[in-house]
Amino acid sequence: MSQAMQKNDDLVMIRDITFISKAENLLPTIHQTIIKAQNIITLVNDPKAVHGWSAKVISPATVYFNQSFQTGESYIIDFGQHGVGYLSFLCDAVGSPPDAPAHIKFTFAETLSELAEPFGQYQGWLSKSWLQEHDEYIDVLPAQITLSRRYCFRYLKIEIVSLSPKYNLTFKDIEFKTVSSAPKYCIECQTQDPQLAKIDQVSVHTLRNCMQEVFEDGPKRDRRLWLGDLRLQALVNNVTFKQHDLVRRCLYLFASHRREDGMVSANIFVKPQIIADDTFLFDYSLFYIDVLYDYFMATSDHNTVKELWPIALQQIDIALKRCDEYGLVIDSDDWWSFIDWHEKLNKQGASQGVLIYCLDKAIKLSQTFQPEISSNLQQKLDFVKHAADQLWDDKSGFYISGAQRQVSYATQIWMILADVGDRNHQQKLMNKLLLTPPDIGMNTPYLRHHYILALLKVGMKKQAIDEIKAYWGKMVEYGADTFWELFDPNDLNYSPYGNKIINSYCHAWSCTPAWFIRQYSL
Amino acid sequence: MSQAMQKNDDLVMIRDITFISKAENLLPTIHQTIIKAQNIITLVNDPKAVHGWSAKVISPATVYFNQSFQTGESYIIDFGQHGVGYLSFLCDAVGSPPDAPAHIKFTFAETLSELAEPFGQYQGWLSKSWLQEHDEYIDVLPAQITLSRRYCFRYLKIEIVSLSPKYNLTFKDIEFKTVSSAPKYCIECQTQDPQLAKIDQVSVHTLRNCMQEVFEDGPKRDRRLWLGDLRLQALVNNVTFKQHDLVRRCLYLFASHRREDGMVSANIFVKPQIIADDTFLFDYSLFYIDVLYDYFMATSDHNTVKELWPIALQQIDIALKRCDEYGLVIDSDDWWSFIDWHEKLNKQGASQGVLIYCLDKAIKLSQTFQPEISSNLQQKLDFVKHAADQLWDDKSGFYISGAQRQVSYATQIWMILADVGDRNHQQKLMNKLLLTPPDIGMNTPYLRHHYILALLKVGMKKQAIDEIKAYWGKMVEYGADTFWELFDPNDLNYSPYGNKIINSYCHAWSCTPAWFIRQYSL
Repeated sequence: MSQAMQKNDDLVMIRDITFISKAENLLPTIHQTIIKAQNIITLVNDPKAVHGWSAKVISPATVYFNQSFQTGESYIIDFGQHGVGYLSFLCDAVGSPPDAPAHIKFTFAETLSELAEPFGQYQGWLSKSWLQEHDEYIDVLPAQITLSRRYCFRYLKIEIVSLSPKYNLTFKDIEFKTVSSAPKYCIECQTQDPQLAKIDQVSVHTLRNCMQEVFEDGPKRDRRLWLGDLRLQALVNNVTFKQHDLVRRCLYLFASHRREDGMVSANIFVKPQIIADDTFLFDYSLFYIDVLYDYFMATSDHNTVKELWPIALQQIDIALKRCDEYGLVIDSDDWWSFIDWHEKLNKQGASQGVLIYCLDKAIKLSQTFQPEISSNLQQKLDFVKHAADQLWDDKSGFYISGAQRQVSYATQIWMILADVGDRNHQQKLMNKLLLTPPDIGMNTPYLRHHYILALLKVGMKKQAIDEIKAYWGKMVEYGADTFWELFDPNDLNYSPYGNKIINSYCHAWSCTPAWFIRQYSL
Repeated sequence: MSQAMQKNDDLVMIRDITFISKAENLLPTIHQTIIKAQNIITLVNDPKAVHGWSAKVISPATVYFNQSFQTGESYIIDFGQHGVGYLSFLCDAVGSPPDAPAHIKFTFAETLSELAEPFGQYQGWLSKSWLQEHDEYIDVLPAQITLSRRYCFRYLKIEIVSLSPKYNLTFKDIEFKTVSSAPKYCIECQTQDPQLAKIDQVSVHTLRNCMQEVFEDGPKRDRRLWLGDLRLQALVNNVTFKQHDLVRRCLYLFASHRREDGMVSANIFVKPQIIADDTFLFDYSLFYIDVLYDYFMATSDHNTVKELWPIALQQIDIALKRCDEYGLVIDSDDWWSFIDWHEKLNKQGASQGVLIYCLDKAIKLSQTFQPEISSNLQQKLDFVKHAADQLWDDKSGFYISGAQRQVSYATQIWMILADVGDRNHQQKLMNKLLLTPPDIGMNTPYLRHHYILALLKVGMKKQAIDEIKAYWGKMVEYGADTFWELFDPNDLNYSPYGNKIINSYCHAWSCTPAWFIRQYSL
């Protein structure tokens, strides 16, 4: 999630036992649903399909459950939907008593490409250990087996690696016990547009599968609570499952283990114990304020927000320390801000926008929880907002970022969300962005979310809908039943990690169309 | 263990609940011993070593327990002795919090060749699933892990297949919890010969590691109760651990599930339930009598032998049905007798010897348990012994076997053990065998055992000792700390299965020197 990897070996951290205890008490109930194997499929090379592979149904899965398999045979099960959970099956021998162990290999895949492209050839820079596979050696048959690890998949490849020639193997009752802390019931979507209704459904399914003991970013990879993802998940949760206690738990988790100066980490590990990652991101830490603000708006839970407000405020203080004397975020090589997965993107301009945006939310919270500092915060807001004017480039009609005066989508989007300039200025800027798109585009659904938000902010509802349909709708056309971490309609193999098979294909930050559709009555 | 594979799909079997229950009540106590990792070694190409590989010690294992490892690193632990059991270890991360699962691969090896030669290249005809490997994916660190399968090894290779670059991995408390139903105490060996004392020690270690819930043939492969192996193990057990109840249990197991006509199977599976294999061997079934006889000699357990005697007797009746009108075992392609692992060996002559040998034991048992049939059995013995004279070839001075009149070690050995001819005849035959060895030699320690027995029978004690030293002593010289399933001093890579790495290197039928040394006071 960070643009590259941070390693900070000698951090001093604050550990807050009270917050840890509160977070642990909010551990959600995990709901289970059994998904049955649906069809047996084969992979077909298909230039029109995403990643070049489509599925051809061979037979209903039940047909295969009546067959037996020998060494070297394999088959692919389509469970008909993406899920997160545990695989179980009953395995038995047919023929002579099994006189050698059965070695079976399982490959779990969110997409067909994970089955088509051998894991052995993976050369990306994220750990290969994320690729989901398992070798099972069965010494005694029949065997009722539940694999101990949680997997995330729609497709399952079963390979009979090795048996004895004296027996064949049968599989029965292959079950996928899916898990989620989202309840079965979800508020119904009211849109009349069938395409948006479908997009909403896929969004909700994405969120459901990411809702586990925390809001995970992606249940295949990284399976972790990231602040940037949490912020968007909490929005969608507010209009779908309303599991506010899960948001509350996550707020406590981030508060429970912070850097010495109070900065909240970009993400939190919860097992074997609650521990903050040593990755710190300028924008993500600031978003703690935004998540707290949205939580308060959704719940009016005065006690929790009052308790966490000082931690939110700390994020403002820490961020302001990174500004120069004129209130501009200093650009250098020693800081990290996420904004988008984009190697060439300069983050200064967008980060300035994030700071202004979050200061505004801080002011709103302060009015309830610490009104005596509201005017001081307002002064700070005016100061950094004014500083943003330095980034305006009259000649190009865009905000620039960094010493190279880079023009990017990200900077314009965040200046609009930061409410810089008046409505007329923002509308003109957005129109300009639509008419003369900068070279530095948008790589992630995460930045695309903020783009939609900016469109809606300036009143371009139709363009927002068109963009949702063109982007998330396109994923649906490609067969997505959960939304992807990364999607570039012009480069379907795009991955910032060096290989698309390590991408997450059910990713929290991609689930926000449901929020747009419901919140803005699209 | 059978020369090739038998598959008999439509067998009708007898299932005896009483015997099953008795066998289950005799389930032995399993004793545990912890073996600590001893040294870290590296493999060295060494033309003088068995299979071309020797081990060079890099450091004591404890040195490695203070180090941490990254993706791509691997090391080999030598536990200092061969064992059977369960691996456990404590695995932890060093560096940033582990942000990706740890994928570790374990390879378990009885011999260095199993580590030097990639399993992926294995092309033998026995199932590759016997090769001992395991991939562990650890989602949460630190992790105290005990692998669920039982492994059989002295050497353990640990490969760090994939971590995140943000952390390294440490291993602590790598323990090998070995298991055996042999007690810690073993009767001391009295030999004064240091080489024989060493051979005895390796024999006893071999037997100990094969003694589990049954007498297994080999704890790496096949891990199963075979009648031919049981017979030799029971002998050694009588002079070492004296676990007579384990022999008794195995006798009940073979009796509990037999072919419709009463024939006992060549081997028995005990999990998930007691079931006879569909492999039936002429010689092995007859040996049921011999095991029962030896058990009676060792224990005087009248009740058990009385109960099982009718089953033993059935094996004689079934074997005699395979004889022609002159009392000679009919040679054809539709029967199976083990004798030795030898593609070219004709089994008729040796099988005739086994029949005579077992008839003699049956007569001895009948004198106690059914004296009224002793004389009838004696007539049958005389008849088949007389028939054996047909196999004598005056011209060559050897017994021949089959239509091709094949001369082999196996036939001569079994004629001597069958006590055909007088002592002078047998001595002459053995001398002839030593002076003019036939082309069809001995491939297994199993046949070699019978060769030693024949030497001792004709009074050639010195030659027997020399042979034990030359054969089993040679394995010790090559570093064996348990004796091997297969050993040909002239072809160290010999395997009847197509690849030496599938051979078992701790194999029951190879443990009999301890019996010779102790029983014959060598």
